[in-house]
Amino acid sequence: MSGSAVRWMGEAIALGRSALGETAPNPNVGCVIVRDDRMISGGATGRGGRPHAEKIALDQAGEAARGATLYTSLEPCAHRSDRGPTCAAIIPEAGIARVIIATEDPDPRTAGEGIRALRDRGLSVEVGACAQQARDSMAGYFMRVTKGRPRITLKLALSIDGKIALPSGESKWITGEDARAHVHLERAHADMILVGRGTLRADNPSLDVRLPGLEERSPRRALLTRGDPVEGWETLSSPEQVYDLDGVNELLIEGGSGAATAFLKADLVDRILIYRAPLLIGEGRNSVGYIGLDAIADAHGRWQVSDGKALGIDRLEVYERVRG
Amino acid sequence: MSGSAVRWMGEAIALGRSALGETAPNPNVGCVIVRDDRMISGGATGRGGRPHAEKIALDQAGEAARGATLYTSLEPCAHRSDRGPTCAAIIPEAGIARVIIATEDPDPRTAGEGIRALRDRGLSVEVGACAQQARDSMAGYFMRVTKGRPRITLKLALSIDGKIALPSGESKWITGEDARAHVHLERAHADMILVGRGTLRADNPSLDVRLPGLEERSPRRALLTRGDPVEGWETLSSPEQVYDLDGVNELLIEGGSGAATAFLKADLVDRILIYRAPLLIGEGRNSVGYIGLDAIADAHGRWQVSDGKALGIDRLEVYERVRG
Repeated sequence: MSGSAVRWMGEAIALGRSALGETAPNPNVGCVIVRDDRMISGGATGRGGRPHAEKIALDQAGEAARGATLYTSLEPCAHRSDRGPTCAAIIPEAGIARVIIATEDPDPRTAGEGIRALRDRGLSVEVGACAQQARDSMAGYFMRVTKGRPRITLKLALSIDGKIALPSGESKWITGEDARAHVHLERAHADMILVGRGTLRADNPSLDVRLPGLEERSPRRALLTRGDPVEGWETLSSPEQVYDLDGVNELLIEGGSGAATAFLKADLVDRILIYRAPLLIGEGRNSVGYIGLDAIADAHGRWQVSDGKALGIDRLEVYERVRG
Repeated sequence: MSGSAVRWMGEAIALGRSALGETAPNPNVGCVIVRDDRMISGGATGRGGRPHAEKIALDQAGEAARGATLYTSLEPCAHRSDRGPTCAAIIPEAGIARVIIATEDPDPRTAGEGIRALRDRGLSVEVGACAQQARDSMAGYFMRVTKGRPRITLKLALSIDGKIALPSGESKWITGEDARAHVHLERAHADMILVGRGTLRADNPSLDVRLPGLEERSPRRALLTRGDPVEGWETLSSPEQVYDLDGVNELLIEGGSGAATAFLKADLVDRILIYRAPLLIGEGRNSVGYIGLDAIADAHGRWQVSDGKALGIDRLEVYERVRG
C-alpha cells in the first residue's frame, strides 16, 4: 500500500467517522475521489443512510470523475434498493477508472458482489487499504451485521475510588465541563441511548445532544425495565433484547449502576468509557454491582486499554472487551 | 540560569533522588563538582544521613576541586555536629571557587547560614537553580522540617471500578508484575511503611523490598491500631501520631481500607498512588470508606494529577493534595 493510498483512505475514513450515529441501519461510509494526487470531491453516508457516500462524492465531482480514483472505506453496495441504483453500477457509469476499497461489506447481500461487479465492468479494484482502521470506524455496523446486535458502549463518570454518587444519590457534578461535552459527542455518535429505571426516576434525563451544530443528532432513547413502558422511551425488558433492536448500530448505556451491572453480567458490553475525576468520594454509590465474578483470576484478560486522554482536569480511559 | 547550570543541577538532583528512603532524618541531597564544563565527581547523602553529599563529592575530587564549581540540591549545612565538620567549612577548604545551590535548607539551624558562611569565605554563591525540582526531590524532608510530620503517600491497587478485593477478601493479584515491582521501588524510597490491623491479620505482609540490589533498603514497619503492640512493628494509635514520629521523612500507607480511610479523613495524605488494573470486580471491597464528605462540591479542588504512566497492562495514576 503506497503512502498516498494510505493518506487518501485516511481522509475517506475520517469523513465516514463524521457521520457516525446518523446513518443507521446503514454504515457510516466515507469516500473521496482523487485525480493527479489531488482530492476533487468527498462525501459520507447521508442522514438515515442515504445518499451513499460514493453517490455524494460522484455527484460533486461530475465530469471530473472520468479517469479518476475512488477511495471508499467500505465495499460499494451491489444489492438493489427501492431508494436508488447500486453504487457498483453508478461508479463505472461516472467514468471512475480505479477503486480502492478498505474492507469488504459483511452484509451478505453485497459481501464481495460489489467488488466483482466493478471488476466485471473493467475497473481496477484493490481491497485492504487501512482495513482495520475502517472496520473500527464502522464498529457498530460490523457488530450488527455479524452478531445481530449493536456495539454496546458503557459510559461511567467516576471518582478515583470508583464511585458514581454520594450515599444520598448526589452526583452533580463529579466530572467537569470538558468531560461532559465529550459525553455529548458520544451521544451524537450513538443511534440509541439507554438508562435504567432508577436513573429515569432520579434524574429524568433528557439525554439530548447539547453541542452547537449537533442538536439535531439526538439519538433514540431506551429504558431497561421490566415495568410499564414510558412515553417517549423504547423499552428493553432485559439486556438480551438488544438482539431484537432494529436499525441500531451503536448503543450507549448512560447509567445507572443497575443497567451497567445487568449488561456487564450478560457480557453485552463491548467498550467502556470511564470519565475519571480527580476526587475521592469514599462512602458512596458503587458504579457496578455483582457481575458474576467469583475469583480475581477470572477478571483478567477481559478488558484492554485502547485509549486515554486528558479532558480538562478529568481523564478519559477507554477499555475494549477482548473476545477470543 | 544558564542551560549548563540547569543540566548540572539536574544531575545533582538525580543523584539525590537515588538516595531517597535511606537518609532520614537527613535530606537526600545530591552534589556534583564541575570544571571546564565536565563533571569531575558527584555524590549523594550516605545511608543514615552521613557522609553528606558534598563531603563525598569533595573527597572523590581531591585536588581537582581547586577552582571548580560545586552544584548541590540543598544549601550546605552550617550547624555543628558531633559527626564531622560542616559542609560550609569543608567546601572552601577544598578550594571550591563557586557554589550553585538549588534551594535554602528549611532547617532553622542552617536556613541561610550556610550561604552566608560560604560568601564570608569569599566564594561566589548562587541560589535558586531548579529550586522547585530540588524541593520535590526532597519533599519528605521539607514536609518533616516545615510541618513536623513525614510526607504521607497512600498506595492503592484498584480495579477500574475502584475495588481492592472480592467480597471474600481475595485480592491476589489485581495488578500485574510491573505494577508490583513499582510498589517495591516506592517501598525502597520510604522510611516507614504503615498498614492497618486488618491487613496485618489477613495478609501478614512482610512489606520488604524485593528488588535486586535494594533488599537492604526495607523500611521501618508501623501498624495503625488502638490495640496491643505487635513485635517487629511500631504502633500508631491514630493518624495524628505521625507528628510524634522520629526520623521519618517519607511514610507509605500500604492498606487496607481502614487505614486509608482514617488518614484521608484526618486529611493526612499528601500523595496517592493508584495502580489501576484493566479489570472490573463489581461487588467487592471498597478502597475507601466515609471520609467526611457530604457534598460533591467539597470533593473538588483537593487533588490534582501529577503523573501517569503505563506499567505493563496496568496504569499508575499519581495524585497530589492541593493545599491552599
